[in-house]
Amino acid sequence: MTEHIKIIKVGGNIINSPAALQAFLKEFAALEGKKILVHGGGALATELAGRLGITQQMIDGRRVTDAETLKIVTMVYAGYVNKQVVSGLQSYGCNAIGICGADGHIITARRRTFPADFGFAGDIDRVDTDALSALLLHFDTVVVAPLTMDVSGQLLNTNADTIARSVAAALSAAAPCELIYTFEKNGVLQDVEQPDSVIPLLTAAHYQQLREEQRIFAGMLPKLDNAFLALREDVGSVYIGPADQLKALSEGRCGTKIIL
Amino acid sequence: MTEHIKIIKVGGNIINSPAALQAFLKEFAALEGKKILVHGGGALATELAGRLGITQQMIDGRRVTDAETLKIVTMVYAGYVNKQVVSGLQSYGCNAIGICGADGHIITARRRTFPADFGFAGDIDRVDTDALSALLLHFDTVVVAPLTMDVSGQLLNTNADTIARSVAAALSAAAPCELIYTFEKNGVLQDVEQPDSVIPLLTAAHYQQLREEQRIFAGMLPKLDNAFLALREDVGSVYIGPADQLKALSEGRCGTKIIL
Repeated sequence: MTEHIKIIKVGGNIINSPAALQAFLKEFAALEGKKILVHGGGALATELAGRLGITQQMIDGRRVTDAETLKIVTMVYAGYVNKQVVSGLQSYGCNAIGICGADGHIITARRRTFPADFGFAGDIDRVDTDALSALLLHFDTVVVAPLTMDVSGQLLNTNADTIARSVAAALSAAAPCELIYTFEKNGVLQDVEQPDSVIPLLTAAHYQQLREEQRIFAGMLPKLDNAFLALREDVGSVYIGPADQLKALSEGRCGTKIIL
Repeated sequence: MTEHIKIIKVGGNIINSPAALQAFLKEFAALEGKKILVHGGGALATELAGRLGITQQMIDGRRVTDAETLKIVTMVYAGYVNKQVVSGLQSYGCNAIGICGADGHIITARRRTFPADFGFAGDIDRVDTDALSALLLHFDTVVVAPLTMDVSGQLLNTNADTIARSVAAALSAAAPCELIYTFEKNGVLQDVEQPDSVIPLLTAAHYQQLREEQRIFAGMLPKLDNAFLALREDVGSVYIGPADQLKALSEGRCGTKIIL
């Protein structure tokens, strides 16, 4: 397969809001070409855990996935969110199929034990691009829930930003790929208090400077680390920007383009 | 595709019991050839609904799927149960991919409004055999959660016995198919009190007689109605029997073979 492939990650705050999700899915369905959509769903998982009285343990802002929490994220990510997204895309004429990384052993991972025991949390070892390409031959879009599996068949909770980057990097060996991180913001911001202070073109050197000045915080750091790593792993282009302007974003007309 | 295909339904009491499920998955993984596995999960859905304080309304023993219940069955069937089954099969070396009927619009249904309003419950209109065949070309097994979608993209809760029969009937137009209903019993019983009173060969006339004598009850009626309908829809062979003896069952060495 040498066709251009878009790998798009949609963030949790979009998944959480029915109106924002519908706006995103409509934009997504209208994008031409073969696409892979990786979604989160952490806030909905936290909400369900709360309703069931299951305490969520966090280490440095990352969820510890104990056995009960793994059940919850499997239900929420691979069940509720994945099928909401698939059926929403179908309603906009995009023939999507929804899977998680365990399906067809498409994403193999190993349990993360460093720097702490995060329970059933996975770090990715391998993406099966043959299986993904087979799905993209028949379907317009593959929707991926952020769960993977180790070689013994154990399901593992896995960061969706990292899944999107790993999939884009693996597919880039055979086809030109574009990696797009979308969320509720307009892009990477020079000043987090100013929604319009979007940096149109972010270089690695500029990113390093923003980090040192502590202008970039928390959730943006792993996303940007993944974005730069993707470029180093030969992904053709990487964008970060608003979920409701996906077409403009993929054409470089809004948001932030990441360059080395 | 002209290869022989086995379509296997596994019942809720097997899904419910970790030991019984593992025994079934091991047997299933060892079966040769291309396979489709349709699963239920109603008891686990009822349990989750209970924990969340969502009352389940029943009409004539059938669940009414209101909006909250649809969320629950989507989480339990397409999420928890589907991915447990997929990862279990992977651990036994069977390369399975898990979907529901909404994925790739593989199973299109319409909302059932007769004889009562069952909420978001679907009756099947169409099975997309091209999409299923494309999946079976690349993967050993397709695992199907009992959810479908109407033409507007609305998810619908759908009877798993009926999904298995509809899939077998649709695929039979292109390839020889075998439909196998498995559960915790040894087969169709002459006397429900006697686990060993298995009827090895059940004809339509004998079934009619058993019904008239009220020897067959409740859950077995829709299963047997689907079994005979499958034969009338040109499915090659239909078996009903024990989930832990799947190989013997598919070779006619135990359980009940259904014939017209």
